[in-house]
Amino acid sequence: MLGTAVLILLGNGVVANHVLRKNNGHNAGTLFITFGWAFGVFAGASIAAPSGANLNPAVTLGLALAGKTPWSDVPFYLIGEFAGAILGAVLCWAAYKLQFDDHPEPAETLGIFSTAPQIRNKPWNLVTEIIGTFVLVAWVLLTPVFASQDGVPTFGNAALGYAGVSFIVLVVGISLGGPTGYAINPARDLGPRIAYAFLLPIKGKRDPDWNYSWVPVVGPLIGGAIAALLYLAVHNLT
Amino acid sequence: MLGTAVLILLGNGVVANHVLRKNNGHNAGTLFITFGWAFGVFAGASIAAPSGANLNPAVTLGLALAGKTPWSDVPFYLIGEFAGAILGAVLCWAAYKLQFDDHPEPAETLGIFSTAPQIRNKPWNLVTEIIGTFVLVAWVLLTPVFASQDGVPTFGNAALGYAGVSFIVLVVGISLGGPTGYAINPARDLGPRIAYAFLLPIKGKRDPDWNYSWVPVVGPLIGGAIAALLYLAVHNLT
Amino acid sequence: MLGTAVLILLGNGVVANHVLRKNNGHNAGTLFITFGWAFGVFAGASIAAPSGANLNPAVTLGLALAGKTPWSDVPFYLIGEFAGAILGAVLCWAAYKLQFDDHPEPAETLGIFSTAPQIRNKPWNLVTEIIGTFVLVAWVLLTPVFASQDGVPTFGNAALGYAGVSFIVLVVGISLGGPTGYAINPARDLGPRIAYAFLLPIKGKRDPDWNYSWVPVVGPLIGGAIAALLYLAVHNLT
Amino acid sequence: MLGTAVLILLGNGVVANHVLRKNNGHNAGTLFITFGWAFGVFAGASIAAPSGANLNPAVTLGLALAGKTPWSDVPFYLIGEFAGAILGAVLCWAAYKLQFDDHPEPAETLGIFSTAPQIRNKPWNLVTEIIGTFVLVAWVLLTPVFASQDGVPTFGNAALGYAGVSFIVLVVGISLGGPTGYAINPARDLGPRIAYAFLLPIKGKRDPDWNYSWVPVVGPLIGGAIAALLYLAVHNLT
Repeated sequence: MLGTAVLILLGNGVVANHVLRKNNGHNAGTLFITFGWAFGVFAGASIAAPSGANLNPAVTLGLALAGKTPWSDVPFYLIGEFAGAILGAVLCWAAYKLQFDDHPEPAETLGIFSTAPQIRNKPWNLVTEIIGTFVLVAWVLLTPVFASQDGVPTFGNAALGYAGVSFIVLVVGISLGGPTGYAINPARDLGPRIAYAFLLPIKGKRDPDWNYSWVPVVGPLIGGAIAALLYLAVHNLT
Repeated sequence: MLGTAVLILLGNGVVANHVLRKNNGHNAGTLFITFGWAFGVFAGASIAAPSGANLNPAVTLGLALAGKTPWSDVPFYLIGEFAGAILGAVLCWAAYKLQFDDHPEPAETLGIFSTAPQIRNKPWNLVTEIIGTFVLVAWVLLTPVFASQDGVPTFGNAALGYAGVSFIVLVVGISLGGPTGYAINPARDLGPRIAYAFLLPIKGKRDPDWNYSWVPVVGPLIGGAIAALLYLAVHNLT
Repeated sequence: MLGTAVLILLGNGVVANHVLRKNNGHNAGTLFITFGWAFGVFAGASIAAPSGANLNPAVTLGLALAGKTPWSDVPFYLIGEFAGAILGAVLCWAAYKLQFDDHPEPAETLGIFSTAPQIRNKPWNLVTEIIGTFVLVAWVLLTPVFASQDGVPTFGNAALGYAGVSFIVLVVGISLGGPTGYAINPARDLGPRIAYAFLLPIKGKRDPDWNYSWVPVVGPLIGGAIAALLYLAVHNLT
Repeated sequence: MLGTAVLILLGNGVVANHVLRKNNGHNAGTLFITFGWAFGVFAGASIAAPSGANLNPAVTLGLALAGKTPWSDVPFYLIGEFAGAILGAVLCWAAYKLQFDDHPEPAETLGIFSTAPQIRNKPWNLVTEIIGTFVLVAWVLLTPVFASQDGVPTFGNAALGYAGVSFIVLVVGISLGGPTGYAINPARDLGPRIAYAFLLPIKGKRDPDWNYSWVPVVGPLIGGAIAALLYLAVHNLT
């Protein structure tokens, strides 16, 4: 839970820094945003290492399907992931409270918390989220020097594993984040959306776009499942 | 094949993100693009580690000439590299399908898949590709803590080897990618060009520039061969 | 002391490069600045490794509260940190002396040395500094492969520990540096402010903003203390 | 020699990419340039590892003064460094030959090869070069997990040592490169200046600015010597 809270605090934080005027990082650009999310994963995964470094239900699902995490642990991970994501969104709001109050276009603040597609077409938006998440989970499962111990990264050693995951999140954001904003993590998208809708005292809020909200939940889960099936196929072949 | 598919998906993906309007990374710049290709290599090489992490025919040729890969393995690597590159280009198109449909200048989409020179002069374009590939393959062959086991990176350990390769691809792109777009990999250029020409349902396509297409194939192979000859010369001296 | 001097030289230096006209890095942007501070921490922490790599009173306080640094060492660390920060600010001024003399708006040079909020509201500015420092110190204390030996980073090995700390400082700057400029270190802010006020021969100086100066001292100390309490709670639970 | 050639090829290359129009990296900015130089050091140092990874006369001098490199090896290193720098500049010219021919302001091409101050004042320019090189050489000598074996980096392991050096060169460029362009290496500045003056067939060349040329040679040597004296003082104290 703490790991996901740190991830979402830092990930939502970089978008707040970019979007809200009166910030040192206002309009700092897409590379800036992708670095924030990538090293937010590094920070969150390192802190969450003792509990298995699960920050993402799509990765949790992939590890369970691949037989690397017991199914009995999955509910606890999911609760921690969603609760942490909501807590991280609240902390992000607190860190940027003055900037939220100052911002003249409150409707655009939803984009700080949750993703939205550049061109709305749910089937193809789903494809983009599936492909992006597939790359992340396939890397976690297939990289042979990684993930050998019960979900805890051991890519050479743990430090390199977390750096490696953050590089993958960086490149997925850079290379596949254009169309939908790369949720690639159901908790990352739905948790802050719930916080935005029900908890945060932001003035002039828009509707939380529930209509789109299932795409960044279902797409990553499908992508994680496909990566797990590929892992099992490769594993059974060799 | 999977490794090259991931590389090309992410490498073509970052250019799509930059080129096509209606993307979060539209016009995000050259550093953004070079990061996408560099960490695309990290992702693809990590995933392809069990099969030797060969994603690039120029590296495969250099390793074979240097005696580090048996010649009998070379055809299988080449088939996997070209098939993976075509698959990666198709996945990139799927992830950016809505953006391709929306883009008003379809002729410029060839640049997402394949390289083109800024100033067209095939002999000098060839020189640029030779020099860039030479740096990459010389690093793979000459770095003493690297590549000791049959083509599998062992730069300290595997994780560092893949990070190291991605740093080299980053700097070759930054420092030598100006004139020709740094193919430095025959499969990376020809595979997506074939996908563009024959497979992808992009409206208003331009011709796939077959006239230039041999330069980013032959140049990298020459650069890889020169690096292998240097390696053999150094190896025989010492 | 040397480590903090290097940190402040490089951290103040990147802001000088960005702010002062007649510099290669003039207006190079927020990502540029956050990279300078992040790898300034890498440089300073590596150099200071033999003495425990303490560059930050908030980290020193967190390590002491967590029982990882003896309280009797704390005064020596604090003296070294503040003296180093003042020395670093003087060296930064020397490196950029010609640019300081040339700059037409001397009042804005305070921002090279010390932080200032984008929107001045001390309670909420304090919250932002607390949250940013909490992430840093929580990472140092909670990452299990880190900091096991008496404050000396051992994240896998020392080199990775320093790289890891610099990634955390990078992401805190990117994701939480918008509202207040992320002091997250009392010595980093107060030391250069003292140098600016009393030592540096800059023409046309403004007042050193003593009114705000306690926020980037007290906020980081509170954030470090909260992280230490969390560490103790987790430690006692498990 | 090969290592310095690779360093200068990549370092000069990134400036050529930025300066010359008709390049993918035209006007890509200061962060782009500093990344090119930093990972150029990574590439060159890795390739030169078997011969001790000396690419910089200021580092060679520091290692010799500190007793880590025998003085009898120094002349060979210096010859290799300067010869490699000249070769690297020639290769850079070849890679960008078409762009050099096309560029309308040939006088500004000197800046691709050698540094120049933003504000010309040789004593203070010297101070800037001394401080920047001091940070680099102090890091090489003082970081305890580094450079234990006869000049070959062993920062944890060799791969991390080269990454570490490249991070230091990155931050010195970002944080101290504003006033003089951070030569911090006599061979890096004088070798390409000689190539520009006597070897390269660039049309419309300006004078090679011999008047300033001694500053980026003498400054780095002084900075390296001060770092060695500090190392000896610390070493004798402990």
